[in-house]
Amino acid sequence: MSGNTIGKVFSVTTFGESHGPALGCIIDGCPPGLALAEEDIQLQLERRRPGRSRHTTQRREPDRVRILSGVFEGLTTGTPIGLLVENVDQRSRDYGAIRDSYRPGHADYSYERKYGLRDYRGGGRSSARETVMRVAAGAVAGKYLRERLGVEIRAWLAQLGPIRLGCKDLSAVDDNPFFCAEPARLPELEAYMDALRVEGNSVGARISLRASGVPVGLGEPVFDKLDADIAHAMMGINAVKAVEVGDGFAVVEQKGTEHRDQMAPDGFFKNSAGGVLGGISSGQDILVSIALKPTSSIRLPGASVDRDGRPVEVVTTGRHDPCVGLRAAPIAEAMLALVLMDHYLRQRAQNADVRSGWPPLAARRDAG
Amino acid sequence: MSGNTIGKVFSVTTFGESHGPALGCIIDGCPPGLALAEEDIQLQLERRRPGRSRHTTQRREPDRVRILSGVFEGLTTGTPIGLLVENVDQRSRDYGAIRDSYRPGHADYSYERKYGLRDYRGGGRSSARETVMRVAAGAVAGKYLRERLGVEIRAWLAQLGPIRLGCKDLSAVDDNPFFCAEPARLPELEAYMDALRVEGNSVGARISLRASGVPVGLGEPVFDKLDADIAHAMMGINAVKAVEVGDGFAVVEQKGTEHRDQMAPDGFFKNSAGGVLGGISSGQDILVSIALKPTSSIRLPGASVDRDGRPVEVVTTGRHDPCVGLRAAPIAEAMLALVLMDHYLRQRAQNADVRSGWPPLAARRDAG
Amino acid sequence: MSGNTIGKVFSVTTFGESHGPALGCIIDGCPPGLALAEEDIQLQLERRRPGRSRHTTQRREPDRVRILSGVFEGLTTGTPIGLLVENVDQRSRDYGAIRDSYRPGHADYSYERKYGLRDYRGGGRSSARETVMRVAAGAVAGKYLRERLGVEIRAWLAQLGPIRLGCKDLSAVDDNPFFCAEPARLPELEAYMDALRVEGNSVGARISLRASGVPVGLGEPVFDKLDADIAHAMMGINAVKAVEVGDGFAVVEQKGTEHRDQMAPDGFFKNSAGGVLGGISSGQDILVSIALKPTSSIRLPGASVDRDGRPVEVVTTGRHDPCVGLRAAPIAEAMLALVLMDHYLRQRAQNADVRSGWPPLAARRDAG
Amino acid sequence: MSGNTIGKVFSVTTFGESHGPALGCIIDGCPPGLALAEEDIQLQLERRRPGRSRHTTQRREPDRVRILSGVFEGLTTGTPIGLLVENVDQRSRDYGAIRDSYRPGHADYSYERKYGLRDYRGGGRSSARETVMRVAAGAVAGKYLRERLGVEIRAWLAQLGPIRLGCKDLSAVDDNPFFCAEPARLPELEAYMDALRVEGNSVGARISLRASGVPVGLGEPVFDKLDADIAHAMMGINAVKAVEVGDGFAVVEQKGTEHRDQMAPDGFFKNSAGGVLGGISSGQDILVSIALKPTSSIRLPGASVDRDGRPVEVVTTGRHDPCVGLRAAPIAEAMLALVLMDHYLRQRAQNADVRSGWPPLAARRDAG
Repeated sequence: MSGNTIGKVFSVTTFGESHGPALGCIIDGCPPGLALAEEDIQLQLERRRPGRSRHTTQRREPDRVRILSGVFEGLTTGTPIGLLVENVDQRSRDYGAIRDSYRPGHADYSYERKYGLRDYRGGGRSSARETVMRVAAGAVAGKYLRERLGVEIRAWLAQLGPIRLGCKDLSAVDDNPFFCAEPARLPELEAYMDALRVEGNSVGARISLRASGVPVGLGEPVFDKLDADIAHAMMGINAVKAVEVGDGFAVVEQKGTEHRDQMAPDGFFKNSAGGVLGGISSGQDILVSIALKPTSSIRLPGASVDRDGRPVEVVTTGRHDPCVGLRAAPIAEAMLALVLMDHYLRQRAQNADVRSGWPPLAARRDAG
Repeated sequence: MSGNTIGKVFSVTTFGESHGPALGCIIDGCPPGLALAEEDIQLQLERRRPGRSRHTTQRREPDRVRILSGVFEGLTTGTPIGLLVENVDQRSRDYGAIRDSYRPGHADYSYERKYGLRDYRGGGRSSARETVMRVAAGAVAGKYLRERLGVEIRAWLAQLGPIRLGCKDLSAVDDNPFFCAEPARLPELEAYMDALRVEGNSVGARISLRASGVPVGLGEPVFDKLDADIAHAMMGINAVKAVEVGDGFAVVEQKGTEHRDQMAPDGFFKNSAGGVLGGISSGQDILVSIALKPTSSIRLPGASVDRDGRPVEVVTTGRHDPCVGLRAAPIAEAMLALVLMDHYLRQRAQNADVRSGWPPLAARRDAG
Repeated sequence: MSGNTIGKVFSVTTFGESHGPALGCIIDGCPPGLALAEEDIQLQLERRRPGRSRHTTQRREPDRVRILSGVFEGLTTGTPIGLLVENVDQRSRDYGAIRDSYRPGHADYSYERKYGLRDYRGGGRSSARETVMRVAAGAVAGKYLRERLGVEIRAWLAQLGPIRLGCKDLSAVDDNPFFCAEPARLPELEAYMDALRVEGNSVGARISLRASGVPVGLGEPVFDKLDADIAHAMMGINAVKAVEVGDGFAVVEQKGTEHRDQMAPDGFFKNSAGGVLGGISSGQDILVSIALKPTSSIRLPGASVDRDGRPVEVVTTGRHDPCVGLRAAPIAEAMLALVLMDHYLRQRAQNADVRSGWPPLAARRDAG
Repeated sequence: MSGNTIGKVFSVTTFGESHGPALGCIIDGCPPGLALAEEDIQLQLERRRPGRSRHTTQRREPDRVRILSGVFEGLTTGTPIGLLVENVDQRSRDYGAIRDSYRPGHADYSYERKYGLRDYRGGGRSSARETVMRVAAGAVAGKYLRERLGVEIRAWLAQLGPIRLGCKDLSAVDDNPFFCAEPARLPELEAYMDALRVEGNSVGARISLRASGVPVGLGEPVFDKLDADIAHAMMGINAVKAVEVGDGFAVVEQKGTEHRDQMAPDGFFKNSAGGVLGGISSGQDILVSIALKPTSSIRLPGASVDRDGRPVEVVTTGRHDPCVGLRAAPIAEAMLALVLMDHYLRQRAQNADVRSGWPPLAARRDAG
């Protein structure tokens, strides 16, 4: 109930602080018989890992994951999967200065009011380092979804500050540190980030995601709609302030004739719904977009108060990402994988017996 | 797990279909000793009730609520509160025609693929009629929050199709059927809706919400962040496709210096965060905005398929809201009340002992 | 979290007080396509209903159940099933005297300390009347288990005070008001109860249960072992003070060679385990036994304190069961059905794909 | 939902197999500000540790626990507490022989039917080694209960096979490897166990527990009664087949006048209820008793089947406890601590505001 667990059947509970000895998680409810090796998880951790380019934090963490249980002779056994990543490059000396004051825009103030005390080293539990275990658990979910159901989940950078980016080539996403699907514009991004670093400031970003191959029927129709659980998962990522499904905020100005996705025997005409009808997946691609705020860890001074309520000026030193959105793509993919995996298992709990008359309405070529 | 329950401590489970005998819910976990009468709930149901103006569905439902348990001698007892509203004006003859085909943009297709069958009368469980019980339960949560904690939650129409509206006068919201806080612009709204009805079409809307007086410390910092649970609650409302907290999507183009809410002993400078820092309430106003799609129940014909997968043309007759957003304000308020109430009780479960040194940083006059 | 819900997939939430307007429940997660009519539920409510003989409370309740949702054209739809039973014969005048004092052995004292107030009429929520909805919900679970899986659940009176009873003829159980499976001994039971009534006292009882046809593999191996969840469900029935599975307390004096159920290709040699190995069903009959205390509602005076902490003498008038165990058989059956149903759905959530090489080890004729 | 989590507010999720690299758990929801060191947990692990006498398994495990998160500067922070114990003395060569056949009385058969495969080394997840993390988590709960509320939880050996033992001196319990509270009878126990070992057999046991100082008002009155959750926790311990609260099965032969615990201003007359009235703690001592079956891991041959369903004879070699009950006392204490802790936090979630007029009815000297 303290919110460190996500998922009801495929259930992930995480622990760990930025500067504690280790980060870990327990995946409970993974179906047995899935081939799983540490390397499967490591591959995803590498995509999230800091220090891959000069545009992200320079903290050097190998992020080596160990599988401590739940896998035997290379297959999941159905028992809980314990995962562990030791912290190596903590350097907690960087953070002593913020022990007694609250960085503006950070969780320092709210944590201390909630709990009465806080682990101030690197933001403790509120650090984006917490997302390591999201990616690790998402790697397991993603592997099952891909291998058993043919689901593919891809995220890309859709906007960096003022620079809007298209989704021209998803295969390019993993070849650049921006998760950019429009590789021709990489120099523009590089230049923007270099200027930002000189300025000592940070900037927001938008990440978009697509999941294809999602079975029809996932999602529970009232409170736990598939899109409601996706919104929960996305808004729970550090720095996310907004979530859209399908046409998102554009629907405000749409008319009914414009929004509704008409259907024909060979599929839907288009996908304004983003793959969810009445909270239940329709078999079309799931389309999601999220906004990440600029990190508040910047070296430009800001006004704040200290632990006694007195005014102070705060300058954040240490190693930080000038745009947390740049590293959010694998995290968002992982969260979407966790939601889809959980709902796939939830769906078969109640409805495993359901047989429908004809194959699901295939997505038309031009949909999605 | 089938998603008809929301909340972990203040927990609400609902049932009921559009054209079934009744709608009901059970509120479990309400603190004892709260004064509660049917009239307290009825008041909120009136605000949501259909047929209050020519711009909403003409279905006539008295929506009389009965309290069946959990209240004794005018006070809640701590045991489950059973609420019931009988359906009166079902007219299921209106809906026979859609039994065998799927209305585009509706849950017909996804329900039937999920469950193998569906109650097609008026959309069954997927009807917006399901929200009656959200409002009823939210009335109980809202009363507790207001009376015990001084929390006020208000929603208003921020945009109707192309018409953007400000929040000039919240006291005017309940005096017009649009929940509009800019009463001078009512004629414009009336004219737009009249033209829309003639056209036989529907349109989207944006609703904004503010909760003031929220205690510091609500929200669980990782997956169940306060804003994550708000996003879940909002995206779970019928027709909602997007959710923002604080500056929302605008953060994408903000710099860190611009976004972060600096602090002084007399409060925060502004409220870009929307009252949530690191997933935990900061004591500032909670600010939320949501987008509702245009209803797909329109009388203009659309292409679809029937239960055998063959092409059909669908025309939705019956009584419908041309803009579901117009009636969404009390529903959104109710959902926000449910989330805040639940997190208030969750917070004291773990942290009832926490004592902080100085009073919470008051919101500055210009904040919010 | 306030404990009025049982089950994670097949989930039942109840409400209602002894002397309130009605009792009700919501069943969430029932698979769609199950044929269900009010009469299916009514049949089980009749078995539990008070006033069937002179040996139970003389309160006259018709206990007519209404299905308010979740069933369409005779089949469950997968949406929540709302059930309602109105209270008719409340006679709350009987209970005014106990408003200000705590009946010994009752929940009066603990409720009032927990909640600060209580609905004292007939025990409010702590009344055995609360079990109506357990039986109603259990009827739905039991129907699915029987029709889809061939599971049969039967309970019988195994001991009434000093009188120990065998399980000679399960078909006789429903033909007598004692749920006795040894019909030749009915006169003995009648005589005992008549003497007890004259004495103004009450007595305890033991109920035994058997579920046959249970699939192999139900139960989660660590905290939610099948027998752990059965123990939870049984100990949660009013007045139950002890639960055994299989050989129960007799295992204390057994040796390993004596206890372990050896296996051969045609089945287990015996069933000391009671159908559960390592918390998971083995395919053998599930065997459970429970102890119910004598009701504390007796007309013989007892010492107690009043709401101001002063000494008082309490005499319970009103209409009560001199042996609550006499009516517990259908309640215990219902609880076992709820647990098995929930675990059947839980099992297929995680393990629907599992295929085993040879048919489950059949129970030998002499096992069980 | 796969059952490796216990508790709703103070929530513990465990992982780990007998012969895997490590065992671990995450405690979520621990109140902040509790002084906690590894030594606090180690102390309890020592009490459970194998190899303390010749009467338990000779597996040598140091069981050194590491706290990986959730504690900062010696105090819990309110974030999840990650605990880890590495396995050292696995010797998995001992277990190869049972890979292809099912030991009678073990979970081998049921695991394999449930999951389609199993980690056969030492019983994998079904090994009693899994209880290490129960004891570790229970140590944290127990420390809070003791330091903040004055709750003391003690378990002792009440029966070993045919030898019944009293509770003469609880202070002696930790001074002998039997957790025996009647130290004069230790030679009798030693002799019995020595004979058993020569015989190659195993035997059952009964453990009794008492929790004193428990606040009034813990427990949720319907399905999650305090005693129901205790029964769930106890029956979920490996090898437990029966649970009693208070007078337990003795209530079957009691009359109402005999069973009910009368009250006077200075307390209850006695404690037949075992400290629970209507599912809610009364402030009296919580009294619980459990039965543990003889382990089925014995070197005397037994009939079984192999993975192809053919008959085999099984002899269990390896290192085993001839009486698992001998080591169950700290495990049972831990489980009771977890339940009480969780219900204490649950209680304050809903009822933190409740104020009662006079101090709880103190337990009389002769009660308990």
